[in-house]
Amino acid sequence: MLLNFKKSSKLLQKYKIDLVDTKIVRSQKEAFFFFEKTKKSLVLKIDSTKVLHKTDIGGVILNIQNKAQLKEAFEKIKKVVQRYKGEVIAQPQVSGIELIVGGKKDPLFGPIIMFGLGGIFVEVFRDVAFRLAPITKKEAREMIREIKGFEILKGARGKEGINIEKLAEILVNLSNLISQESNISEVDLNPVIANKKEAWVVDTKVITQNSKVKSQNYSLKVKTDIKKLKKIFNPKTVAIIGATDRLGSVGRGVCKNLFEGRTKRKIYFVNPYKEKVFDQKTYPKITDIKEKIDLAIIAVPAKIVPEVAKDCVKKEVGGVIIISAGFAEIGKEGEKLQKEIEKIFKEKGIPLIGPNCLGVIRPKAKLNATFAPATPKKGEIAFFSQSGALIDSVIDQFANTNLGFSLIVSYGNEAGLTLCDFLEFAKKDKETKVITLYIEGLKERRRFFEICREITKTKPIIVLKGGKSQIAKKAVLSHTASLAGEKEIFSAMFKQAKILEVESLEELFDLAKALAWQRKCKNNIAIVTNGGGAGILCADYCEELGLKLAKLSQKTLKILSNSLIMHPAFSRSNPLDIVGDALADRYKLAINTLLKQKNIYGLIVIQTLQIMTKPLENAKIIIEAQKQWKDKPVVTVFMGGEGVKEAINLLENNKIPNYPDPKRAAMAIKALIVDNSG
Amino acid sequence: MLLNFKKSSKLLQKYKIDLVDTKIVRSQKEAFFFFEKTKKSLVLKIDSTKVLHKTDIGGVILNIQNKAQLKEAFEKIKKVVQRYKGEVIAQPQVSGIELIVGGKKDPLFGPIIMFGLGGIFVEVFRDVAFRLAPITKKEAREMIREIKGFEILKGARGKEGINIEKLAEILVNLSNLISQESNISEVDLNPVIANKKEAWVVDTKVITQNSKVKSQNYSLKVKTDIKKLKKIFNPKTVAIIGATDRLGSVGRGVCKNLFEGRTKRKIYFVNPYKEKVFDQKTYPKITDIKEKIDLAIIAVPAKIVPEVAKDCVKKEVGGVIIISAGFAEIGKEGEKLQKEIEKIFKEKGIPLIGPNCLGVIRPKAKLNATFAPATPKKGEIAFFSQSGALIDSVIDQFANTNLGFSLIVSYGNEAGLTLCDFLEFAKKDKETKVITLYIEGLKERRRFFEICREITKTKPIIVLKGGKSQIAKKAVLSHTASLAGEKEIFSAMFKQAKILEVESLEELFDLAKALAWQRKCKNNIAIVTNGGGAGILCADYCEELGLKLAKLSQKTLKILSNSLIMHPAFSRSNPLDIVGDALADRYKLAINTLLKQKNIYGLIVIQTLQIMTKPLENAKIIIEAQKQWKDKPVVTVFMGGEGVKEAINLLENNKIPNYPDPKRAAMAIKALIVDNSG
Repeated sequence: MLLNFKKSSKLLQKYKIDLVDTKIVRSQKEAFFFFEKTKKSLVLKIDSTKVLHKTDIGGVILNIQNKAQLKEAFEKIKKVVQRYKGEVIAQPQVSGIELIVGGKKDPLFGPIIMFGLGGIFVEVFRDVAFRLAPITKKEAREMIREIKGFEILKGARGKEGINIEKLAEILVNLSNLISQESNISEVDLNPVIANKKEAWVVDTKVITQNSKVKSQNYSLKVKTDIKKLKKIFNPKTVAIIGATDRLGSVGRGVCKNLFEGRTKRKIYFVNPYKEKVFDQKTYPKITDIKEKIDLAIIAVPAKIVPEVAKDCVKKEVGGVIIISAGFAEIGKEGEKLQKEIEKIFKEKGIPLIGPNCLGVIRPKAKLNATFAPATPKKGEIAFFSQSGALIDSVIDQFANTNLGFSLIVSYGNEAGLTLCDFLEFAKKDKETKVITLYIEGLKERRRFFEICREITKTKPIIVLKGGKSQIAKKAVLSHTASLAGEKEIFSAMFKQAKILEVESLEELFDLAKALAWQRKCKNNIAIVTNGGGAGILCADYCEELGLKLAKLSQKTLKILSNSLIMHPAFSRSNPLDIVGDALADRYKLAINTLLKQKNIYGLIVIQTLQIMTKPLENAKIIIEAQKQWKDKPVVTVFMGGEGVKEAINLLENNKIPNYPDPKRAAMAIKALIVDNSG
Repeated sequence: MLLNFKKSSKLLQKYKIDLVDTKIVRSQKEAFFFFEKTKKSLVLKIDSTKVLHKTDIGGVILNIQNKAQLKEAFEKIKKVVQRYKGEVIAQPQVSGIELIVGGKKDPLFGPIIMFGLGGIFVEVFRDVAFRLAPITKKEAREMIREIKGFEILKGARGKEGINIEKLAEILVNLSNLISQESNISEVDLNPVIANKKEAWVVDTKVITQNSKVKSQNYSLKVKTDIKKLKKIFNPKTVAIIGATDRLGSVGRGVCKNLFEGRTKRKIYFVNPYKEKVFDQKTYPKITDIKEKIDLAIIAVPAKIVPEVAKDCVKKEVGGVIIISAGFAEIGKEGEKLQKEIEKIFKEKGIPLIGPNCLGVIRPKAKLNATFAPATPKKGEIAFFSQSGALIDSVIDQFANTNLGFSLIVSYGNEAGLTLCDFLEFAKKDKETKVITLYIEGLKERRRFFEICREITKTKPIIVLKGGKSQIAKKAVLSHTASLAGEKEIFSAMFKQAKILEVESLEELFDLAKALAWQRKCKNNIAIVTNGGGAGILCADYCEELGLKLAKLSQKTLKILSNSLIMHPAFSRSNPLDIVGDALADRYKLAINTLLKQKNIYGLIVIQTLQIMTKPLENAKIIIEAQKQWKDKPVVTVFMGGEGVKEAINLLENNKIPNYPDPKRAAMAIKALIVDNSG
């Protein structure tokens, strides 16, 4: 339901959002009186709970400059008001830049807030910013700075800008309103007119919930039992229910992978139809095992999972992974089955991963409780993925590289433990330096947001979001809503929680590698290259990404110019082109001189493969330099194939991330830049 | 110099560009008379050759509705006119969408034309389209459709759009004006106001050249001697001047590479300081060789190049490659030296490649006349690069892949032959199916544009442009000019010539591979995958890139649903998810059924590597299917590393391009889509 002017303005006042001086005028006389009082041109408008778009029905008359015009306008608007019911309201005409500010209860994320430039451009250019509400003043400022039209707000090309602080206040206040008023579903402040001094809310549209929406648990408080998770990820005893050695089967895959950790734990095979699996004794039921079981892995057909689950509860296992598919993902019947098993474990407080998942890998604990085709190296990266198949491919892709993982979880249907629980674990996990995510939907959106916002204060999170296209097509409801496709709100939420969003799996691990191996640095870097073209391309990418290229100091230039090692035609600028015939000694001179310059905080070393190039020697130089200048991250672009393989391997063994293309290196170093904004 | 209204409108009329009804009014009486005649609200403006921005000085009065207002306005504007000299002009006030159309002589490309939405948004959002002039009506329509604000012009959200044909006419006519009027340097039609019926030019600014600019040869007519080039690329005899076997030297590199073609041609070594090189006799001078020399390669210090060059002329060699650096690229002294050698060869009509280049590789002729570290495979791709170092790295990168080259040229300083000459050659070259370019600047911009526009009718050209960032910072002169950074005009030119512009070296060859190996197809494709996540990501990329995903037909769905091979939970939609346990028989069923559907014109096959996945068998299935459905391009995404290597090799041996990431596959298939626009 639409609120009328009186109720709307009262509500807004409660949150210190002031409307422009507005008066209900019931007669010409009252209008005249208001005109004389304000001493400004007037606007007359209809106020009716039946009218959503005033202008469309001739319900707004602008620029009334004298009494004659006012008389005429009042008569005109009176007729409109009679038709639609309601009242006439009068306001002084204000001038400035038209903005739109909106708040609403998003079905996915709860209270959100939106801001953009008004008029047709907001709709065509979609130049809007979103945040989950409530927001701080700092976040409000970030929102304002984020839109492309910010140049206009700052005051572009000699034109006056606006009072950004006033606008930020309105954003903060509206974000509080939409968060705290449970019966308000949407507020549009449209337009807000702002100039150098003031920001006036000129018109509003406040909509209340038309039916009691059940509590959506936007701020779900759930506690994750980290202790129990720790045990699951490093169990002393594991039982695999559905153990088999049948070729190509999931059960066989799990058995083989588990066996890699046989020095670390006891592994029990459960299978009532087989006496032996891989020459090892099997048990008909998990309850037949005498020892306590820390982790049970279930890989049997969906239909018999409830029975097996009950056995696990009876056995009081420490935790369960259900790999089996055939649950909520296949429809109603599966959903019922899933609820059944969810209940079985929940009652006893047994943590459950899955169903319909690949499982869990904890390389440091030598635990591979999945049917993945291989086990990855141990490392600093946690990878939580809604898709199990992507995990498989990622493991194979990085099998022969130096990229390693602290924890991999395929979390499946989240009947028990959810992505948020694994995030809570990763937050405290000492092995994990970087968290990578592949998600399509999110079960607990607000919780996700809150946890991630906490985590990113100490550990970077990088996310790849799939399924942007399909859901973006969903029907939209109202004005603010129509600007807020799911894609846009997800991206805004990621930004607000300081999660890095990437566009491909390639980029996900390109960035993860840099963040896992390198330090963060301030935004002023240098590029050294033995190929002009590659350097120029890299500079282009840096500029596009907002990376600053340091000016070479007089001292730096002097050292380089005075050295006999340097080629006379070297570039004398950043990118520093040390010319194609550069050998290791020239790279050494260049790299060390650049890193020595105080205001150079990071370095990209490019090596094109020329006939005299010595990749291995160059790699050693870089590794040495990095040891000396520990705080200044170095990333490399050793271009080529076979000719640079060994050198790249050496670099990455020493945690210098290498990228095959200058673009990817620039993107990686960008992820290392400390955010100084706000 | 700024032209006055009279002269401007006369010039515009000559090209059938009509201004809105405009009258010079010298008195109030004349103004009243015009008002009565037009029967519309009026606008009064100053017309003065001293005023560039009328509004800034109060030289425009809008919305004059009656005689009282007209009187007041006339008095006011009269004062302004008196101050600045000039006249008062009157126009009826027209309403519609404000546009800006401009034409100018660009210092780089000659006559260009620009179009955008008017107002502050054109400047802040930079939502403008450029073309080299003159343009056709079709190109004008493409320009109009290209801007983001096209939605507004079409009529967005219930608002009226504009008459696009009228606007296109103005664009075409202005493009003729700026091309044909040699003394006009810039024309701004700002604003052009357009509505559903009409498009009026409301104000103009015509600037003439303030000094005679020397003829810029925008449409240079040069004939390339293809016959001579053919000989250079497959010479019977080659002499290398500066032959040596000194380790790490350029000369040694060239000798070794040339030797790979020793069965195809005689190779002579020239070096006055060595009796033998690689155990082969040397000659002191090229003139000492008795046989005719088809190609001489010069790799001696810059200073002695002129002397050696004269010997080559004396010897009447068929062509010359000067690898030596130290010419125009190092400054004035080098430039002088370069002019000298340029003259030496030009006089005798001897084709010259370089100086300051890596050389030329023609794999099919077994000619590697470079000092690159290896020789690439022969294939369908021509690669012309302004950077020699990038060529080196590219060769090494693709050494162990199936990607091959028809011709590689490092064209260096272009003292003799230019990039355009090599493009002319590639145009007719039967070995070349796709042309790839890395450029930073362009020596003959108009010629490049004209040649490429011709070539792309039959062969695709893909370009990577380096050096976007630096030059974009150059100072800008006037309004139209300020919107036209070099980057934007280059990109517009590429688009106009139907050249595909890419953003990285990786993308350059990703696209080249698809275009070299696959056919073009119409825009309606399918995706088949054994991993939901990868399929969803791929669909996201397709949507972003404007690729249409075909709806699966009832027949297709029936065949799939009725087969026992198919998993019961398969997706029944496009992307077709055939579930993780898919073996080769299921891939076969899916692929063949999809390709059989008439309105599916291309296919992306995704394979995530799961425990039961059989990459090699799947590859064979794909190769067989491709043979049966020759007209429908298939590209693959076999995700993973070691586990899929062999299968990828098999695929690519059979010219099925594979990409490690669904994003790159989507981009590649996008390059295969036939352009149906216009």
